Formats: sequence, structure tokens, C-alpha cells
Amino acid sequence: MPGPVTSTRILRHENGAFQDADDILVTEEPLEIRLGHGPLDERKEFRLSVTMRTPGHDAELALGFLYTEGIITAPDELLRVEHCANVKPEERGNVVRAELRPEVELDAARWQRNFYTTSSCGVCGKSSLEAVHAQCRLRIEPWGTIDAAVMTALPERMREAQTVFKHTGGIHAAALFDRAGKLLLLREDIGRHNAVDKLIGAALHGRLTTDNCQLLVSGRAGFELVQKCVVAGIPLMAAVGAPSSIAVELARQHGLTLVGFLRGERFNVY
Amino acid sequence: MPGPVTSTRILRHENGAFQDADDILVTEEPLEIRLGHGPLDERKEFRLSVTMRTPGHDAELALGFLYTEGIITAPDELLRVEHCANVKPEERGNVVRAELRPEVELDAARWQRNFYTTSSCGVCGKSSLEAVHAQCRLRIEPWGTIDAAVMTALPERMREAQTVFKHTGGIHAAALFDRAGKLLLLREDIGRHNAVDKLIGAALHGRLTTDNCQLLVSGRAGFELVQKCVVAGIPLMAAVGAPSSIAVELARQHGLTLVGFLRGERFNVY
Repeated sequence: MPGPVTSTRILRHENGAFQDADDILVTEEPLEIRLGHGPLDERKEFRLSVTMRTPGHDAELALGFLYTEGIITAPDELLRVEHCANVKPEERGNVVRAELRPEVELDAARWQRNFYTTSSCGVCGKSSLEAVHAQCRLRIEPWGTIDAAVMTALPERMREAQTVFKHTGGIHAAALFDRAGKLLLLREDIGRHNAVDKLIGAALHGRLTTDNCQLLVSGRAGFELVQKCVVAGIPLMAAVGAPSSIAVELARQHGLTLVGFLRGERFNVY
Repeated sequence: MPGPVTSTRILRHENGAFQDADDILVTEEPLEIRLGHGPLDERKEFRLSVTMRTPGHDAELALGFLYTEGIITAPDELLRVEHCANVKPEERGNVVRAELRPEVELDAARWQRNFYTTSSCGVCGKSSLEAVHAQCRLRIEPWGTIDAAVMTALPERMREAQTVFKHTGGIHAAALFDRAGKLLLLREDIGRHNAVDKLIGAALHGRLTTDNCQLLVSGRAGFELVQKCVVAGIPLMAAVGAPSSIAVELARQHGLTLVGFLRGERFNVY
């Protein structure tokens, strides 16, 4: 089963010269997420999606993905999420299966990956926003005042906890903090969406209440990341990078406090 | 029709104090790509994908996407790529349609977005690599020796040409350079894959030969970006950030020279 890092030989250019060196890369491998009833009934099994991800916390990734994409509406709709054993040897560790409770029905409309492409809604910013609105089950309680000292301390706390980043320099992170800035959870992945899905999946799995927490992401704040926070009812999302136009619009519609360009002593509130 | 940037009011925290300010955000809007025969035959029209993108160069994005994903095997399989006029007013500018030549057949297997999920191949790194291999029509001529002075000059040249980044700080870029480091093409987008698709689409559209060019991306070098370069026959890809394990493996299999962590006077060759 693949691990989160992979070692390799490289040619390094430094101080005007090339030299051979050992290096460590972040692992990227496909993960297939399956959803079905009963452990072995192939007829009732759906192959939902394949995402390129960094191995590790795969069950949490699947749980977070299923929840934030609106495919399940509560974690207890699932009996279990496990790596599939009945796959080819080379696929082992790259296929997870979520088993629905017998009484939960599979609704085809719910597992369309790009939910805003359904014929019922148009292809425009407004319909993307409305699709998220329809998915929301939790009301966000406004965060209120931002404590600048707490906010500006978050990135350094996240970086200190990032084990894979330290070795590879090539991985995204998502971290959950309480109001006082205490780190509660951290997940890393080559894909920023996966890092957030793993984090939200871990919170759901651990029954951690997130309605008074702040989430920090290492990259930029795009639409899909804000969508995941809104669906999970997280009231504040901060990003080291820039937000997009529709991310700001979505955050404002739902009363989510969005912070961007969190670097050093500076940040913006949108 | 939406533009590449959107203005907004924000609260800026700087020098220990909050103040209201004007700000400019990178625009993020959905784009639907349709593919069909004839201009108006709905029965023959397929809605291929919706991607969140920054508006601009949409036809090039669609052309690059269709080509690098293996849905078309040559740009002349298409008669035209245009924004759809027969859509709701709010969707205008967010739907493009690629029209196939009458003699080119639509093959359902070719337009599966995640081609490596087809039942014929497994979910593992090896099958992901094989799927790209099957898609390759161009053989990569090895790049040969890297001129360190040319290589280290590329990021600054790309940044100077990035108009949207200057205003928003929140957009990815892909740039194509010749052997001597002369900038040939630059495209920006909120999504790194879209920036590369726009660039490759522009090169295809302009019948620019890329088999002696180098491509630079502003972010990291993941599997899908290397895949796009391999399919387009580009012999060298450089990234400001880190590569992943499978990106390095794919590059090595196809003789693509992969450069990472291109920062200042330093870089790595994988």
C-alpha cells in the first residue's frame, strides 16, 4: 500500500552547479470512492468518483467528500467506510467503499459530481450559488469580531504541525482551530479539496462540533472550498492566498466570515 | 458577460488596525463545454463537463481540454468552438460548444472525464500511467542539456507578463517559452489545469509547434499537468513548486524533462 511520501534521485542545481541528490516527493495516487448497500452486492454498488490524492486518511476523505458534496446528508447514513479487499492486488489501498444503512435510499440525482450541471439549473454564478444553498442543512452562526492576534498566529501553527510538507514542500494543508487559536485537527493532501474533505471527514467521524471553529487552508480560497465550509457549518474560513469573486459572494450569502492573504501581520476580511 | 476581475469592498488588517478598502478579486464562474455535430441538433449534443474557471479565452480552454483529455485526437476534428447563443441570458458567456466535423464520430468511451476509471483498467498508479500512454500520439524528443541561466530567468519573465495576477494576486499562470527563453504564450486562470488547457488550446489554434518549447507553471507539478504536456508533446515542463511522485514517474516514462522548485538561482531536475 503506498505511503504519503516516495523517495527518488534528482539532479539539483545550486550555487551555479548541478549535483546528484536524494529527494522525497509527496505521493499522488488515484482513489476510487464506491457507495452501496450491503457488503458484497455488486448490483447496488456505484463508482462515484476517482480523485488523485495523497494516500492516508482515505476513509475520512470519502466521508468528507460524500457529506460536503451532498451525497449523504448525515454521517450516520453510513454503516462503515473501508478499503475494499476484493480488488486486484495493485489496486489495494486505492479503493474505498462506503456502505449505506439498508433504510437509506440511493438517489441518483444526489450523486452527480458536478451538481450544478443538472438540467434544472443554469450554468451561471447565480445557479452555482443556489445549488449550494439547496444543500445547506446547518445555519452558520456569525463569527463576530476577529481577534487579530489569534488570526495572525494561525499559519505558523499550521506549518509547525505539517509533517509531510516539511519533507516534500509540495502539499496542501487544512487545519481546524478553536476560537482561541488552538489547533484541533490537521490534514494534508496534494489536492486542496482533498485536504478539506479529510479534515471535515475527521471532524464528522470524531463527532467534533465545528460551529464555533475556524478553518485555515494553505492555498487560495476558491468556490469549492468555501462551499465545503458552508455545508459543514464552519463559520470562519481563512486562506493564506487570495479568494475568488464567487467564493466571496458565497461566503457573504451564508454569513461565513472569509479571510484572505493571511501573511505575517496582514490579512483581508471579505 | 463576466470579465476576469471583479471589484469589491473589504476590511483590511494592516499595521495593527482594520480599515475599509477597495479590492479587486479574480473572477471565478462555471464554464460548460458541449460537443456535438451540426449547429443546432440537440440530439447529437453532449454536455461534457463543467469547470470553474476565470472568464476569457474560453474557446482555447475547450480546445485544449478536448485535446489533452483525448476526446479529440487533432484540432482539425473540430469545425469551430464558440460561445453558445441559444442559452438563458444569465448563462451567456458561460457555455461553449465545440462542433465536430460531420465525418468524425463521437465515441462514448473517449469522453469519459476520468478516463482511468473505465472498467478495463484498475485504480492504481500503473493504470493511470498506462491510460496516458494509450493517449499519446506525439513522441517527445529529449530536451537535452538545461541552460541554467535561461531556466532561472523564466519565472520573472512570466510574472512580468501576468496582468491579472498583478491586480488580484490570486491566479495561476502557464507560459510557453522557446529554447532561448523567449516568451511565446501566456495564459492565466484560477485553476491550474485550465491555465495549461488555455495555453495548449492557444498553441493548437495558432498552429504553433511546441516540440521544441518549454512550459512553466506557477504552482506545483501534479499528474494531470504533466499528462497534458506529454499528450501535447512538450519536452520540458518546469514548475515553481514541487512535483508529485506519479508526475515524476510519468515524465520519466515519456522522456519529458521535469523541473521543480524553480526559485531564484535554484531548481531540481527529476
